[in-house]
Amino acid sequence: MDSRQRYQILLNTINQYNTGDIGITRVAYTNEEQACTQEFMRMCKAAGLESRIDECGNVIARREGRIKGLPPVIMGSHLDTVYQAGKYDGVVGVTAALEVIKRLNEKGIETDHPIEIISFACEESARFGISTLGSKAMTGSFDKEKVRYLKDRNGVTLEEALSLCAFDIDSVENADRKGENIKAFLELHVEQGPVLENEHKKIGIVTGIAAPVRFSIKIIGTPAHSGTTPMNMRNDALLGASEIVLELEKAALNEQNYGTVATVGVLDIQSGAMNVVPGEVEVKVDIRGTSLESRQRVLDHLNRTIESVGRNRNLEIISEEIISEEPVLLSNEIIESIQTICNEQDISYKLMPSGAGHDAMNMVKLCPTGMIFVPSFHGLSHHPDEYTDLDDILLGIDILEKVIIHYSKKDSILHGNK
Amino acid sequence: MDSRQRYQILLNTINQYNTGDIGITRVAYTNEEQACTQEFMRMCKAAGLESRIDECGNVIARREGRIKGLPPVIMGSHLDTVYQAGKYDGVVGVTAALEVIKRLNEKGIETDHPIEIISFACEESARFGISTLGSKAMTGSFDKEKVRYLKDRNGVTLEEALSLCAFDIDSVENADRKGENIKAFLELHVEQGPVLENEHKKIGIVTGIAAPVRFSIKIIGTPAHSGTTPMNMRNDALLGASEIVLELEKAALNEQNYGTVATVGVLDIQSGAMNVVPGEVEVKVDIRGTSLESRQRVLDHLNRTIESVGRNRNLEIISEEIISEEPVLLSNEIIESIQTICNEQDISYKLMPSGAGHDAMNMVKLCPTGMIFVPSFHGLSHHPDEYTDLDDILLGIDILEKVIIHYSKKDSILHGNK
Repeated sequence: MDSRQRYQILLNTINQYNTGDIGITRVAYTNEEQACTQEFMRMCKAAGLESRIDECGNVIARREGRIKGLPPVIMGSHLDTVYQAGKYDGVVGVTAALEVIKRLNEKGIETDHPIEIISFACEESARFGISTLGSKAMTGSFDKEKVRYLKDRNGVTLEEALSLCAFDIDSVENADRKGENIKAFLELHVEQGPVLENEHKKIGIVTGIAAPVRFSIKIIGTPAHSGTTPMNMRNDALLGASEIVLELEKAALNEQNYGTVATVGVLDIQSGAMNVVPGEVEVKVDIRGTSLESRQRVLDHLNRTIESVGRNRNLEIISEEIISEEPVLLSNEIIESIQTICNEQDISYKLMPSGAGHDAMNMVKLCPTGMIFVPSFHGLSHHPDEYTDLDDILLGIDILEKVIIHYSKKDSILHGNK
Repeated sequence: MDSRQRYQILLNTINQYNTGDIGITRVAYTNEEQACTQEFMRMCKAAGLESRIDECGNVIARREGRIKGLPPVIMGSHLDTVYQAGKYDGVVGVTAALEVIKRLNEKGIETDHPIEIISFACEESARFGISTLGSKAMTGSFDKEKVRYLKDRNGVTLEEALSLCAFDIDSVENADRKGENIKAFLELHVEQGPVLENEHKKIGIVTGIAAPVRFSIKIIGTPAHSGTTPMNMRNDALLGASEIVLELEKAALNEQNYGTVATVGVLDIQSGAMNVVPGEVEVKVDIRGTSLESRQRVLDHLNRTIESVGRNRNLEIISEEIISEEPVLLSNEIIESIQTICNEQDISYKLMPSGAGHDAMNMVKLCPTGMIFVPSFHGLSHHPDEYTDLDDILLGIDILEKVIIHYSKKDSILHGNK
């Protein structure tokens, strides 16, 4: 059986674990997802790996190296999904890692460093509204009191869900591996965006992860009768909101070279009705970029817009930060290694930020970290129609294999994260 | 007791009929509203009027004229309210009409023509989503099959509600007075807008009623991940919607001299979420004006905008008309009579359209019709804080009294509606 056939079976086997009618639903800490995790551990065992589950539900499968005492080189991603997901997303990264091991086994390659595969627990925020729980726990940033009572759509708390899977929320922090020496972490993932497809590139080499800064902006005018209020006597909150929405686009378009993006995904008119001039509107803004300077220029433009729209339209505008995460830069040395490999193989690639969050953004706290993207059909993500061509995945696995082989040599050098 | 005291008591008595905690709630065809109607009939009787209730629940109270066989001059408005209404709105017009009769009685004035007061049933759309039911019935435009099963918020149909008040929906059309000869109809109403207050005018002389044309506009783009989709690869439906909202304002501002107004009061993002580029947005547009040509220019601009936004942003935009009512022009002769009276009394006035619908807009089918507005504090309407100064109402009653006296003379001439 060739790698292609073998990998296809691997992917199909994982995706048999599915509780949904439409697409794939394999949500964190459910019976189905735990059964899938067990299946994956059996697969790892069949490939000669020792595996264990840590206190947070992360699976850690290990292939020992030739030289005792060297730190591991790690690959991984996650097996959990959103509701009505596709077949790719994190699954690709986990199954790719196992396929790399199978290839090494097949070729009889022993490595100096041990190699690990991690299947991270609860990467998706779909169930509890919080993402990358497993990698947070592993990197010492799991705050149990902040998450204990988070509830899923059925009212089950995270604490209860963990307990039903035989995990104890008060022990989760023991999954922390910050004290350990780890050589590198690599994550293969589908792009979840349209860039590689549009630019006809096969591989995305991720330079950083563009964590969001988010705002709620309340625009307060005066509700009025749509028929009896002349145009020049209105304080229409929606008109102010519309100007803000369009100016935000303009600001982000100016920062395209930096990959910064800005989105208004939520706009609510309070007591909206056809015959009422909107008196209050809330918009929610999401701005992302790996360059803090670029993100700040968008923010500055947003704030100037808020000021001028408020003044010109006589609206009160209140902007409140919901979240502000620091963008994460990935290891330049790993980026260069992947670039070298792509160049040697004459494979088209693009250096690009990741606009979505990944376990890799936590793993930078433990070790030099890299990410490889493979193309997503039409950029569809978290959707039943999400699709990545098998050949594109296999090309991603080729690159991942070569990077892992490179860094699992004793004399390959990694200085740090920057 | 002077007119001021007498009128204040009249207004207060009506507003004692109220089922709400906040503001006034006296919704059509409820026990409270029917009790109020009975109270009003007792008041009419005390003022020497004969009154009856027609098949739709309209109260018609009549003061006979000196000369037999002359058509009546009619005044009126409505006693029903929206939920959590104020104390003014239609109540002012009905009570003002009764106060005019009391003044005539007090002064011993007999008129050539008979005078009628009508308290129209179910003017507000608050309960069944359809407005001016009573005046529709009286003017032959009540379509029983279209409204029979309209439901209120408790699931009670209009048919059932009528029946509980001892009215039979199959008899309502008998309230039609189209065959009758009627000399004129006059309605005094609060402005429900800020124009008189802002322009320091005491009386609004209504030139026409700006019925709305309404559209639902669906803007269809592509939902996408807010982090992973570069700005230049988006088809953001909200950005298209925002351009439409702002262009609509521009178009209406250009038509300010015609009093045309345009409003987007509803904007819904389908599956709106902070991390999703909006894939589909629906906006609802309300355009009103008494000039059909002006309204059409706004519509033309809207349609050109839809076309260009669709093309430039690669969005599919589907516009669907929800309702299109013809604006109604009121009697020029009555407008001129009111103007003359205001000029003689040195009372400030403004010729203005009504942006809201009124029973008067149906009554134009029966006879020459006029409307008098008195100022609304801050333009507040359908709101517990709705307010009109008592002195302003009394000034309106003065004008109404003079108009009624004028037209109830046999030799006062009215040629028709235009």
